[in-house]
Amino acid sequence: MPPYLHPDRLLPADPNVRPVARRLYEAVRDLPILSPHGHVDARLLADDAPFGDPASLLVSPDHYVTRLLHAAGVALEELGVGQEPLTEPEARRVWRRLCEHWTVFRGTPVRFWLEAELSEIFGVTGPLTAETADCGYDRIAERLADPAYRPRALFRRFGIEVLATTDDPCDDLAAHRALAEDPAWTARVIPTFRPDRYLEPGPSGWTGLVARLGETAGVDTSGYDGYIRALEERRRYFAAHGATSADHSHADPRTDPLTRSEAARIYRSALAGEATAAEATAFRRHMLLEMARMSCEDGLVMTLHPAVRRDHHTPTLRRFGHDTGHDIPLRAEFTDALRPLLERYGTARGFQLVLFTLDETAFSREIAPLAGFYPSVYAGAPWWFLDAPDAIRRYRRAVTETAGFSRTSGFVDDTRAFCSIPARHDMSRRLDCGFLAELVAEHRLAEDEALEVAVELVTANPRKAFKL
Amino acid sequence: MPPYLHPDRLLPADPNVRPVARRLYEAVRDLPILSPHGHVDARLLADDAPFGDPASLLVSPDHYVTRLLHAAGVALEELGVGQEPLTEPEARRVWRRLCEHWTVFRGTPVRFWLEAELSEIFGVTGPLTAETADCGYDRIAERLADPAYRPRALFRRFGIEVLATTDDPCDDLAAHRALAEDPAWTARVIPTFRPDRYLEPGPSGWTGLVARLGETAGVDTSGYDGYIRALEERRRYFAAHGATSADHSHADPRTDPLTRSEAARIYRSALAGEATAAEATAFRRHMLLEMARMSCEDGLVMTLHPAVRRDHHTPTLRRFGHDTGHDIPLRAEFTDALRPLLERYGTARGFQLVLFTLDETAFSREIAPLAGFYPSVYAGAPWWFLDAPDAIRRYRRAVTETAGFSRTSGFVDDTRAFCSIPARHDMSRRLDCGFLAELVAEHRLAEDEALEVAVELVTANPRKAFKL
Amino acid sequence: MPPYLHPDRLLPADPNVRPVARRLYEAVRDLPILSPHGHVDARLLADDAPFGDPASLLVSPDHYVTRLLHAAGVALEELGVGQEPLTEPEARRVWRRLCEHWTVFRGTPVRFWLEAELSEIFGVTGPLTAETADCGYDRIAERLADPAYRPRALFRRFGIEVLATTDDPCDDLAAHRALAEDPAWTARVIPTFRPDRYLEPGPSGWTGLVARLGETAGVDTSGYDGYIRALEERRRYFAAHGATSADHSHADPRTDPLTRSEAARIYRSALAGEATAAEATAFRRHMLLEMARMSCEDGLVMTLHPAVRRDHHTPTLRRFGHDTGHDIPLRAEFTDALRPLLERYGTARGFQLVLFTLDETAFSREIAPLAGFYPSVYAGAPWWFLDAPDAIRRYRRAVTETAGFSRTSGFVDDTRAFCSIPARHDMSRRLDCGFLAELVAEHRLAEDEALEVAVELVTANPRKAFKL
Repeated sequence: MPPYLHPDRLLPADPNVRPVARRLYEAVRDLPILSPHGHVDARLLADDAPFGDPASLLVSPDHYVTRLLHAAGVALEELGVGQEPLTEPEARRVWRRLCEHWTVFRGTPVRFWLEAELSEIFGVTGPLTAETADCGYDRIAERLADPAYRPRALFRRFGIEVLATTDDPCDDLAAHRALAEDPAWTARVIPTFRPDRYLEPGPSGWTGLVARLGETAGVDTSGYDGYIRALEERRRYFAAHGATSADHSHADPRTDPLTRSEAARIYRSALAGEATAAEATAFRRHMLLEMARMSCEDGLVMTLHPAVRRDHHTPTLRRFGHDTGHDIPLRAEFTDALRPLLERYGTARGFQLVLFTLDETAFSREIAPLAGFYPSVYAGAPWWFLDAPDAIRRYRRAVTETAGFSRTSGFVDDTRAFCSIPARHDMSRRLDCGFLAELVAEHRLAEDEALEVAVELVTANPRKAFKL
Repeated sequence: MPPYLHPDRLLPADPNVRPVARRLYEAVRDLPILSPHGHVDARLLADDAPFGDPASLLVSPDHYVTRLLHAAGVALEELGVGQEPLTEPEARRVWRRLCEHWTVFRGTPVRFWLEAELSEIFGVTGPLTAETADCGYDRIAERLADPAYRPRALFRRFGIEVLATTDDPCDDLAAHRALAEDPAWTARVIPTFRPDRYLEPGPSGWTGLVARLGETAGVDTSGYDGYIRALEERRRYFAAHGATSADHSHADPRTDPLTRSEAARIYRSALAGEATAAEATAFRRHMLLEMARMSCEDGLVMTLHPAVRRDHHTPTLRRFGHDTGHDIPLRAEFTDALRPLLERYGTARGFQLVLFTLDETAFSREIAPLAGFYPSVYAGAPWWFLDAPDAIRRYRRAVTETAGFSRTSGFVDDTRAFCSIPARHDMSRRLDCGFLAELVAEHRLAEDEALEVAVELVTANPRKAFKL
Repeated sequence: MPPYLHPDRLLPADPNVRPVARRLYEAVRDLPILSPHGHVDARLLADDAPFGDPASLLVSPDHYVTRLLHAAGVALEELGVGQEPLTEPEARRVWRRLCEHWTVFRGTPVRFWLEAELSEIFGVTGPLTAETADCGYDRIAERLADPAYRPRALFRRFGIEVLATTDDPCDDLAAHRALAEDPAWTARVIPTFRPDRYLEPGPSGWTGLVARLGETAGVDTSGYDGYIRALEERRRYFAAHGATSADHSHADPRTDPLTRSEAARIYRSALAGEATAAEATAFRRHMLLEMARMSCEDGLVMTLHPAVRRDHHTPTLRRFGHDTGHDIPLRAEFTDALRPLLERYGTARGFQLVLFTLDETAFSREIAPLAGFYPSVYAGAPWWFLDAPDAIRRYRRAVTETAGFSRTSGFVDDTRAFCSIPARHDMSRRLDCGFLAELVAEHRLAEDEALEVAVELVTANPRKAFKL
């Protein structure tokens, strides 16, 4: 049996642990999926158009997949990156490239997710090799033409109860509205307010962005107060369309306040294209604090996942755009960076702040201690590069002893690969059950308690942390 | 059987490892407790008055316990923090709050320690829930009225051989003297010199502190030389009362020297309230180096556990005081920070420096390499947030390969929760035996060697590192 | 049976994992050794003179061994450090010191390597103690007099196929040439270009170094252009003598470019002894970028292992020289530091950059993400303090999920202890097989795939990463 089909996959091997893990997993395996943060486009479900070809669905847009192929020497243009839609021969060629280099994914979660998807969704179970590339491609393409493989049908088959998307503040959320108003559609697809670009004055079109923000919000953003009102307005609009959270990512999570007049001065300077880099940074850090204030007022959960150097390789950025596999993590510091925010709002009723990181050192040193004191702070799930078996285990081992289970957010798939959602949640469930089973086997937790926790981690925890 | 009563609790589950771990643990389980660093008040034992109510004993003063309850939404005032003594109804209410939220401690060492205490000391073995709260409270309260539960009786029952307290340099150590002079009292209760506040010029009463230091030492501290002599004098006083170590904690462990004249100039400025923040920091870093010099001269072991942002949430500090659960760790750097100190004293005969940290990254990167070269440096035990099963394992795995076992300090409970001392030491012993058993099972150590190490870790190691 | 002789040593204890690990290890145990980076002197093999005494061979020059003895209170002069050659009584005394303190190595890889060497190479299997010291010494000394224990004979017995040395840019590589021209010698012993000292203007003889560089290269280095040409010339010379890589280590890995004129200006200043410390650092960072440019042109693989504070204890440096056990790691940052280099050369055809570190936090945060995107970047093996069982496991667990196996360099022994080479490679093979077996036991990889990977890690991976 291929590894990804084994019923015990990802459960600890220890014979004293595995049977416990199996029992825990049985109890959560089929529970509905809550996906409180991700990058699937709501239009996909609103339109319910058939998916395109296998490569455009599973390879080209997914930087988790393309990056390791690129490292193996396959140029991004050979993978269709940024070139969708692909012609049939192009798509077939991309798929072939993937199959030819499939061995580079050994030991990675991409391998596991994709093989699980192919097998469980598309019924393609053989090994991916140059020889089987065409045959596999045909099988998937054939399925994709079948109405049972349209987005809505798959969504139902996946057992998704809530799916949060990530959206620009100026988005009119028409797709979300269409779904909400469609009597045939009963699941929740909710937007998430993602204002990063609007908070970072800089050369790349920021002036145009805030102008558009003003238009969309119906507020004059030529001054700082209007800019603030416009952001508040758009947040309310998102909340009215079902959003429960606002999502933030900057190079660092500092939240240093400016006086209103200083903020207004920098805003004017920035609009005139005259703000220095230091001023722009100061403004952004101030605005992150403002976002927390707004969260206290409008109730949107604040999620924060800082400290990534985006678009590390400029030549690739220029040719292929953002999110093409070369965002590289940085060290993260939370203790001092978030102090101004937590001094003000850390114990404010209703305020919630979910912290994610790619710097694992912060798990036990900063995130767990913060989440273990502040009622507002939750330790976000292992995210991005860390959404993988060993990293997930490290997360639980680093966070639980200081913050327990109740202060953790539950799993977040953060994916733009729609078909990978079930496999990702399944992986997380298996690993959390494995961790709990270890506690049981070492007599650190009774099995009935572990069972309660296992269920809460996929139900109560994300509901509470993300106010679902 | 509840997990915390299982004889194999905390031992590795692997069937090839557990039997070895069990044999090693048998050999150390009942050895006397050496507690070379902690926060129990010596007056507790000198007075030997009965403990108050269960909440004042086990909940309100213990920030390990209150912090996660606070994160769960229980206000600190509901937990009696800073309000002792509690009336009976108040104490009962605090206890009830704990029981109602007991599930938040799942997977944490607090859960394990407290259940072990309740069961092994007080004979309360049922689950803690809202329903059992009153009954459990009554059981414990009843026991506390029994002379067999007075501090000295428990101390003997716990098998403590040495207990070090932590004391202000101006403390007259009367309680320690009373115990030493009491023929009915044979155990060692020794003070520890903790001068942090006296080394950090700043706004919060430092001028008064150094004045009092001068009075206590009988030395004029209006100048730098007198200040130095007064510190030396008080250290001698502590040593004469049994102290074997001086304990230090600052925001960072830098040890940059100042010239005598520059130090004297800043000291004068600081007394006049005119030192800048930078000067105060420079002075403190210089004084940490001076403390090392004094350690070389008077033989007190220097223990150093830097890099915590104390009192992170100012509103909580203002209302409830220090040590109320919101000290949050910072990154720690030792290699360059300690270089001036180690250049001077690193190989000085008799000088000993025990390094603790909350930043686990320093274990393998800095602490083990330093302890693996300098005869003066010991890798302190996993401390505070890290005094927990998985963190203790990470510590041994990170430190042993570079520094072996002989360069580690042995366990330090660092607790103000007197009744938790046996459970904490027991946890540490179980985990060290588990780690050693893994080495045996992987043929990295013979079992007779592992047995020797297991015994040394609770006897020879702390004796040597802390000069007990 | 002593642990280091057990056939299953270092394989995971779990009964579901060990049999798989055993099968994988069987397949790689006897494969030839590729050693692409280390510090054995080529003259050792060119001359093939008998080794001296046991202490000079196994103790005095090996800072892995002497450092923990020093920490245990044995002075370096008692260990013969920097005093070779030793008289027979001196050597015997050094050996005795080692044996007396042998227990301090429990749990360290030094213990494991040395016992494996003694047993497998010299047939000395008893425990090392004060009592057995003389007898063991005699046994080893007797063997060393036997021609079967000369360097070339051992080299063949060890099954080494390629051995890379580390050499000064001005070295004439006569020993390498002699070996290459010797028809009786069929293995490859190749030099490595190590220019660090030539790239760091400073007080310690740099002016003399670049003058000598000019003489050796036959280029006038009184100006910056000549200095660059001389370096290019020496690299070509090394490549012509078989070198496949250039090795770099500085306090940090930054690669910030200077303009040609600014670089030339600093170079002139530095030659005149007038460059500031900041200019010297800027120059070195610029030169590291230049080294990458040269690697693109001449094809030498660039290996980089930054962030160590060399010679931490100046008194020891003054008395015993470099590499005497007190190099202490620093935090390492790669993401921003290497960005200028990778922007320019990260996707250049043929360019290869192998990253090593002693700061484990960089494994999952920076090195794996970089190696998982850039075709030029390889994650170097766990190195120095991290070349030990638990650290090797942490490395695989941290790197594999993001970068797979194909982006890792394969094992690097980096040793000056010739006789430890087989034991080090054996340790690495056992641990990699153990890790792979865990993946198999958790159904994350099929056993036939794991077998392929295990073989590649000791064959294809180092061949590719180091262009062997």
